[in-house]
Amino acid sequence: MISLSDVREAAMRIEGIAHRTPVLTSRHLDELTGAQVFLKAENLQRVGAFKFRGACNAVACLDADERARGVATVSSGNHAQALALAARLEGVRATILMPADSPPGKLAATRGHGAEVIEFDRYASDREALLAELVRERGLIPIHPYDDERVMAGQGTVAVELLEQAGPLDVLLVCVGGGGLIAGCATAAAGLSPDTRVIGVEPEAGDDTRRSLQAGERVRIDVPRTIADGQQLPMPGELTFPIVQALVEDVVTVSDAEIVTAMRFLFERAKTVAEPSGASAFAALLAGKVDGAGARVGVTISGGNVTTERFAELTG
Amino acid sequence: MISLSDVREAAMRIEGIAHRTPVLTSRHLDELTGAQVFLKAENLQRVGAFKFRGACNAVACLDADERARGVATVSSGNHAQALALAARLEGVRATILMPADSPPGKLAATRGHGAEVIEFDRYASDREALLAELVRERGLIPIHPYDDERVMAGQGTVAVELLEQAGPLDVLLVCVGGGGLIAGCATAAAGLSPDTRVIGVEPEAGDDTRRSLQAGERVRIDVPRTIADGQQLPMPGELTFPIVQALVEDVVTVSDAEIVTAMRFLFERAKTVAEPSGASAFAALLAGKVDGAGARVGVTISGGNVTTERFAELTG
Repeated sequence: MISLSDVREAAMRIEGIAHRTPVLTSRHLDELTGAQVFLKAENLQRVGAFKFRGACNAVACLDADERARGVATVSSGNHAQALALAARLEGVRATILMPADSPPGKLAATRGHGAEVIEFDRYASDREALLAELVRERGLIPIHPYDDERVMAGQGTVAVELLEQAGPLDVLLVCVGGGGLIAGCATAAAGLSPDTRVIGVEPEAGDDTRRSLQAGERVRIDVPRTIADGQQLPMPGELTFPIVQALVEDVVTVSDAEIVTAMRFLFERAKTVAEPSGASAFAALLAGKVDGAGARVGVTISGGNVTTERFAELTG
Repeated sequence: MISLSDVREAAMRIEGIAHRTPVLTSRHLDELTGAQVFLKAENLQRVGAFKFRGACNAVACLDADERARGVATVSSGNHAQALALAARLEGVRATILMPADSPPGKLAATRGHGAEVIEFDRYASDREALLAELVRERGLIPIHPYDDERVMAGQGTVAVELLEQAGPLDVLLVCVGGGGLIAGCATAAAGLSPDTRVIGVEPEAGDDTRRSLQAGERVRIDVPRTIADGQQLPMPGELTFPIVQALVEDVVTVSDAEIVTAMRFLFERAKTVAEPSGASAFAALLAGKVDGAGARVGVTISGGNVTTERFAELTG
């Protein structure tokens, strides 16, 4: 488990390196939902997603020996870019395992940040085993996209900032992939604003966290087929899940169609670009999966890495 | 002519009604252009465009008798929605002449803001004559989209805010349609930051202001064919042009293709949505029409009202 202090220390470490992202509001959205909605625009974070916070904190925590050895991870996209950039800014070498079917822009961007990218088949390979082997062979320091206390603490800075910017929140809606963002945010909220109900949002096809909460233990599902590529995970994290169990009130799900509707709304009304995974928490509010009436609702817009072509394909 | 005081008074009048829009920055963009770039995100303004500022100031300037009579304008674009909303917020009746073949979304949005919309046949009618007749018949107060001192002063608040937010600027790039935005912004910059070079940007096909500056008098061109529908004007304004002549250093032009490249860049890199007219000033910087090397460059992103369908059509 991590503590509020870990998140606060992360906030100090990443200050001036990660962006303090703006909070977007929309009168139209407030009228539509009956809530007062605060969109935390992590699509405007460096590398276009909250992932930069965790990666940045993790790299900042390395000692001299670890820095010299270099870092490694496995990621479908945003954590890859985030770690690549965070490492480059600190002069540390990064080696990244990425599914071969990751969005091409994400593969290119990760290489663009100077990382060595090794591709693998997402449906045929055990990503954790691949990473373990790479780390062992090359003596690298693994920085897991979510099952890492430094990463979780870094992601929690999203909630610290949002609570500072928006004031007290009744509800905080957080996109759930492996659970790093929600574990960090729930930790921050529990310490800073214990009355805030933290609710996770997963794609319908990828409801491993919801099922795990119901089962009382981590449940593995097939790798989900969903447009929300950042949430295509079969099982909650070993470190993230106990925090979710302890601090998250509920996990709700949204369909791919509801995610697209949310992306379209964000584009046309908020004039902001969210990738599918990044729009899922907002989709839950817009589709009425969470009743926001009369409430002050914080929502993570967790990433914006989608090309114009892919956006057109999804919304067309 | 308007003065800095007019713009400052407008800023006070619209404070708390219009948004103080954020300024977006991008390290990638700075690296690409060699400049330090500050994007003034008027796409995040109410009704999605800077037009709300001018409309809001104009309505706030009305005396009791004028308020009781109500306001009128003719517009198929953002000024229609801007005036409708500005009037509603002040409890003033708005009557808006709109071409019957305006996009249904724009007709609906203008009615949604409580205005009476009167449709006319854009091919059969002279819009200025229709407005004059309506104003005379009903005793309404006309509020022109740009040739109005209250409107120009309101638009100038964009530059006041940007200079406060970004600090001193070497260059300020402003989209030019009828000239209301650039007249207001150039007035503000001349007063607040006389060393800032104000440069206007027009679509190649609609370079009436550039030609007029060269000719030393207002020149009329055919209604231009360009995707930048907010800049499809045949001639600079009677009131805006003398200000442009006095205070604007240069007007450059961009092609439709350059505008689309700029829209795509804003989407993919800045995660923000600009309509074609709204992206034209930025297009000039991105296409190298203005050399920003080593300079602090402010750029107006003047509007974001584009549907996902139209965006896909343009960028596809």
